[in-house]
Amino acid sequence: MTADPRIQRSKDAVLGETQRLLAESGIGRVSIDEVSRRSGVAKTTIYRHWPSRSALLLEACSTMGEPLATPDTGSLRGDFTVLASQLAEHLRDANWAAVVPSIVDAAERDPALGELYTRLHDAMMAPFLSVAERGKKRGELPRGARPAEVVATVVGPLFYRRWFSREPLDSAFIKAVVSAAVGVGAGVVKR
Amino acid sequence: MTADPRIQRSKDAVLGETQRLLAESGIGRVSIDEVSRRSGVAKTTIYRHWPSRSALLLEACSTMGEPLATPDTGSLRGDFTVLASQLAEHLRDANWAAVVPSIVDAAERDPALGELYTRLHDAMMAPFLSVAERGKKRGELPRGARPAEVVATVVGPLFYRRWFSREPLDSAFIKAVVSAAVGVGAGVVKR
Repeated sequence: MTADPRIQRSKDAVLGETQRLLAESGIGRVSIDEVSRRSGVAKTTIYRHWPSRSALLLEACSTMGEPLATPDTGSLRGDFTVLASQLAEHLRDANWAAVVPSIVDAAERDPALGELYTRLHDAMMAPFLSVAERGKKRGELPRGARPAEVVATVVGPLFYRRWFSREPLDSAFIKAVVSAAVGVGAGVVKR
Repeated sequence: MTADPRIQRSKDAVLGETQRLLAESGIGRVSIDEVSRRSGVAKTTIYRHWPSRSALLLEACSTMGEPLATPDTGSLRGDFTVLASQLAEHLRDANWAAVVPSIVDAAERDPALGELYTRLHDAMMAPFLSVAERGKKRGELPRGARPAEVVATVVGPLFYRRWFSREPLDSAFIKAVVSAAVGVGAGVVKR
């Protein structure tokens, strides 16, 4: 809790400029120097709120996309359809989606950023994992099914289309992906 | 065809240094200047073989991983299992797998690199697409199935595990992914 509105204003300015820099140039070019220059907030003040560049990046990234709520439609297929549709919206959001590959790339070489990325990733995937676990308890997945694997079969194809094959994330695709994951098969979906 | 072995040697030196730079630092730091400095090949010579940085990057990236051959096991499940296992090997190859996110990230901001990336991607996916199309013709996928969507349900989860969730690409996972894609369902796979 920040009581002083001036403090809140400078924190907001720092986070806002960090997010703009991330979206413009990717994570590699975000420095405390540049954020300070653009936000007009002194470096000492920035370091008072965030002990490290990673801490600032973590907060800036984690507030860029609205977190997904865990739906409860009564069926695994329904829950996955809601979540996959919301994720597809996030993936169509130019700012957020342009930043993720730069974090993934930086995480390949920098263990501190790797940890930052893992925390972001786990938070983003938590609703998918909980609906998969609930679906398994309800008997909508066979006993041998591993929830984390089922989540990969829903989320993986969406990430693939946005960042790798650059094909559209339309509702027919989402339907096919969810069908494959819940055991109907990608091809069996009715159009 | 290069008749002169000295020319071939300098081309090989340039490609080799480009690949090493890519693996060390990602695509953002690969410049003709740096490649020239490290390979000892003059910039004018490099530009004689590759008219642009993108052309050099394209050739360096496309020769980093062995291209996948199109298998013919007699069934779509068999073909996908062969291809997914080979792709998983590529994804475990530290050099190649560390470079791809830097290309994807750069492609988000640079249309020329975006085109380069699309060509690499399409070449890598061609065997997946042809086995899916053949399987569909053989009736192993329903009439409504779209081969490109089925390919996304096989490849997407593998990319997801390597670059996003950073979980292991073991054979149980590959089996679950292929089962989901060919219509058996991710959970129904026998362990």
